[in-house]
Amino acid sequence: MDTELLGYAAGILTTFAFFPQALRMIRTRQARDVSMTWAITMTAGVFLWLCYGIMMHSLPMILANCVTLVLLFIILFFKIRDQGNSES
Amino acid sequence: MDTELLGYAAGILTTFAFFPQALRMIRTRQARDVSMTWAITMTAGVFLWLCYGIMMHSLPMILANCVTLVLLFIILFFKIRDQGNSES
Repeated sequence: MDTELLGYAAGILTTFAFFPQALRMIRTRQARDVSMTWAITMTAGVFLWLCYGIMMHSLPMILANCVTLVLLFIILFFKIRDQGNSES
Repeated sequence: MDTELLGYAAGILTTFAFFPQALRMIRTRQARDVSMTWAITMTAGVFLWLCYGIMMHSLPMILANCVTLVLLFIILFFKIRDQGNSES
């Protein structure tokens, strides 16, 4: 299988995996079972994968990590907003 | 910065991001706010990133995605076990 194609398929899956999560949070107005540690660590990690993708000249990695980063910011927003209602 | 080093840092962050999530599920015995769609899509996506990493000869990608895959299986286990208690 073509490597680039495989990268795009992987990128589409891991990126779209965050859409239902973000939608679920908007719908339920809860972010209780998603830990703050997870949200912050993932955001930092995805940012570094983006840098790695740029250095590897991997377009699938660059595109996937850019979109995932935006979605993680949405999740982080709900988590921070909910901080007052429950512990971490 | 060294590309491989950047990849390892990214891999450590996104991999360890799943540890608190898995631990939180074990502790709270709940997986309500984590959607089944997310868990399945992430598992498929991480598997494809693993294949992509192998084809790109990227050791950071191979190692990170192997460990993340194992953690996703733990999360999937709790989600499937909880399926009876709540809708998706």
